[in-house]
Amino acid sequence: MKPVKVGLLGLGTVGTGVVRIIEKHQEDLQRQTGSAIEIAKILVQDKSKLRNISVDADKLTENVWDVIGDSEIDIVIEVMGGVSSTKEHILTALGNGKHVVTANKDLMAMHGAEILAKAAEHGCDVFYEASVAGGIPIIRALVEGFSSDRITKIMGIVNGTTNYILTKMSQEGAAYADVLKEAQELGYAEADPTSDVEGLDAARKMTILSTLGFHANVALGDVEAKGISKVTKEDIQYGKKLGYEVKLLGIAENHDGHISVSVQPTMVKSSHPLASVNGVFNAVYVTGEAVGETMFYGAGAGELPTATSVVADLVAVVRNLKLGINGRTVLAPYKEKKLKTDEQIASKNFILLHVEDKAGVLAQITQIFAHHEVSLESVFQHPNQSNPKAEIIIITHDANQASMKNVLKQFDSMDVIHAIKSVYRVEG
Amino acid sequence: MKPVKVGLLGLGTVGTGVVRIIEKHQEDLQRQTGSAIEIAKILVQDKSKLRNISVDADKLTENVWDVIGDSEIDIVIEVMGGVSSTKEHILTALGNGKHVVTANKDLMAMHGAEILAKAAEHGCDVFYEASVAGGIPIIRALVEGFSSDRITKIMGIVNGTTNYILTKMSQEGAAYADVLKEAQELGYAEADPTSDVEGLDAARKMTILSTLGFHANVALGDVEAKGISKVTKEDIQYGKKLGYEVKLLGIAENHDGHISVSVQPTMVKSSHPLASVNGVFNAVYVTGEAVGETMFYGAGAGELPTATSVVADLVAVVRNLKLGINGRTVLAPYKEKKLKTDEQIASKNFILLHVEDKAGVLAQITQIFAHHEVSLESVFQHPNQSNPKAEIIIITHDANQASMKNVLKQFDSMDVIHAIKSVYRVEG
Repeated sequence: MKPVKVGLLGLGTVGTGVVRIIEKHQEDLQRQTGSAIEIAKILVQDKSKLRNISVDADKLTENVWDVIGDSEIDIVIEVMGGVSSTKEHILTALGNGKHVVTANKDLMAMHGAEILAKAAEHGCDVFYEASVAGGIPIIRALVEGFSSDRITKIMGIVNGTTNYILTKMSQEGAAYADVLKEAQELGYAEADPTSDVEGLDAARKMTILSTLGFHANVALGDVEAKGISKVTKEDIQYGKKLGYEVKLLGIAENHDGHISVSVQPTMVKSSHPLASVNGVFNAVYVTGEAVGETMFYGAGAGELPTATSVVADLVAVVRNLKLGINGRTVLAPYKEKKLKTDEQIASKNFILLHVEDKAGVLAQITQIFAHHEVSLESVFQHPNQSNPKAEIIIITHDANQASMKNVLKQFDSMDVIHAIKSVYRVEG
Repeated sequence: MKPVKVGLLGLGTVGTGVVRIIEKHQEDLQRQTGSAIEIAKILVQDKSKLRNISVDADKLTENVWDVIGDSEIDIVIEVMGGVSSTKEHILTALGNGKHVVTANKDLMAMHGAEILAKAAEHGCDVFYEASVAGGIPIIRALVEGFSSDRITKIMGIVNGTTNYILTKMSQEGAAYADVLKEAQELGYAEADPTSDVEGLDAARKMTILSTLGFHANVALGDVEAKGISKVTKEDIQYGKKLGYEVKLLGIAENHDGHISVSVQPTMVKSSHPLASVNGVFNAVYVTGEAVGETMFYGAGAGELPTATSVVADLVAVVRNLKLGINGRTVLAPYKEKKLKTDEQIASKNFILLHVEDKAGVLAQITQIFAHHEVSLESVFQHPNQSNPKAEIIIITHDANQASMKNVLKQFDSMDVIHAIKSVYRVEG
């Protein structure tokens, strides 16, 4: 039987993993798909570069057209990253009738709808399991496992770098800047860590997950993203004392078709399964009307975990080829996107205030909450005995975001409140 | 468009959930599949029975033939349980060209190969996601998510009843018999709990998971099953002290095609994600060569979680109907089954001994381990200060099962060892 020919765009970490898995598991893949799978061409930036994988030199090319324009190639795997020129390459490949597997979250978060439309037009598959949470088959879970259910909430630890940093800060009482530096030295964080630490990477992944989970075209701009660069070791220590771990959570909610998606450092109750997801691991916590609470946990990045998802997508494309159903298995979002207003977004909150140490201050503060109809779960005064400053930690019951903004605005104007040191959403 | 007609065998807990979800999510299901889905007939034992769901009385029948023999019905959902007569009904339905969705673990563990062969012969789908771990889409994860990988280990908390009992014993220091009684009163355990507490239910689920994960026809008889009825609160308390939780784990391992599958109460390191899976929740921990460690967590039973999986399978069948690919998506096991010998099965072990309280006993004991080439990780003498009996807890390094059996046999014959109180496999 004629082998299925695959073109690879990129031979970095994930690309190398893809080559390794296809070589090592060739026999199993053949059993799984009924076809031999051959990597026919690989686009690289520099053919002469030394690599820690041996690849037939004839297969390497520096010209993208050798891959996306080669009529012998059935499937293009895109693991080169980038957005605008990569998008053009993928659109061209689809235009040439090639199926596409991509690990590119930026691309799918920003241009997913356009790419999927082009694929549908040309009867091609586009799969992107690896774009979210590396080796965890979360896209399949949402699309197939929960096809019968209505997803109401998706909470994800979907960025390994920030989870590594927060875990270290929690376990070692270390400061953000020190752990970031260490993570950079270990290769867990980029030289310019902005995209990870400011929550942008997580926002892209949440865009993809919420679009699939809620069947509405969520755009990257719909996601409110806040990162971890302002998280202090004091916040983490206070959180621990009260039974919380700080995690960077993507949170997507859907109530009767009204959607909100955000990324923010969150106080997660220690007993919640997400609280013990540590280090570079990822996890996605999915709540469905019928299925209840579920969690999917695994390696969120890395050569082989991510390549596992890429090659699983490749297997799916080849199976579809054999069945003659490419381009016919994707369900486009069919629900109108209605974003929640601040009045419709509710959560518990953790607030740390530095206040003037005199009688009556707490009464003033609680009165403001009452005025804005925010009820309180607990109030801790002077939580830190060794700190002479008067500190107050307040945990609210579910409060809507509009009321919370009003409360904080009023706090800001009060002389007896020296500083709103930190505000966290609370989950679990 | 003509609706797809479904026949339901059984209207118990899961059947009721299936009817509810199909009614409530009808519009979404139509979007997902391109077809209206109609429950045309429902087999019940007693048509006149009062039910907590209102169903058109015309649809109820006490005659199975009205479902499996009705030429209008495209898909049969089997949620009645039972094995031998149920198997005949399903084979007949398949013979009549009907696709089958079942939640029946007993049936699939015992007769899965025969049923799948019959389905293949008639070009029919048979899906059974709900047969293992209720709402968790673990079968899809193994079959599709990890199609590119080689699964080396599957550890599962796949029985909610026993996990509920062990959780209560751990959290409240309660005795097995008391918690079992409470579980029976709450409806978490059957009047005859044997199948759950002796590990048979878990063994059936592990048969299904290991067959799918390892691509070999694992039979129920290949699974060594041991239940929790001998687990004492003392074992649990000692485990906790040393940093372990006792969990009933199904453990399937695959090294180069050599397979072992077992179910047994296991000491799981507290930091392992499985250790904090509590109550009636289920979780399956899957290790793959490439993907590394992953975990899937959720409700293992219950009306709606289980029905979620049943209806997700129904969606898959209807999608296949639309694509004209029924009966063509299932991969039969293609690897020869080679079971491990005792010499090939290795694990750490936890052993609690009651011994004579005199000098030299520990030396004798450790010598026996050394003689059988079992090395020790740690030894705790008199772990319980308030207990005057001399107790020793030993944790071994990885030791093969044959050596362990020899060690225990020798212990059995020694006068200075009064009792081998307990032996647990150790994981994590």
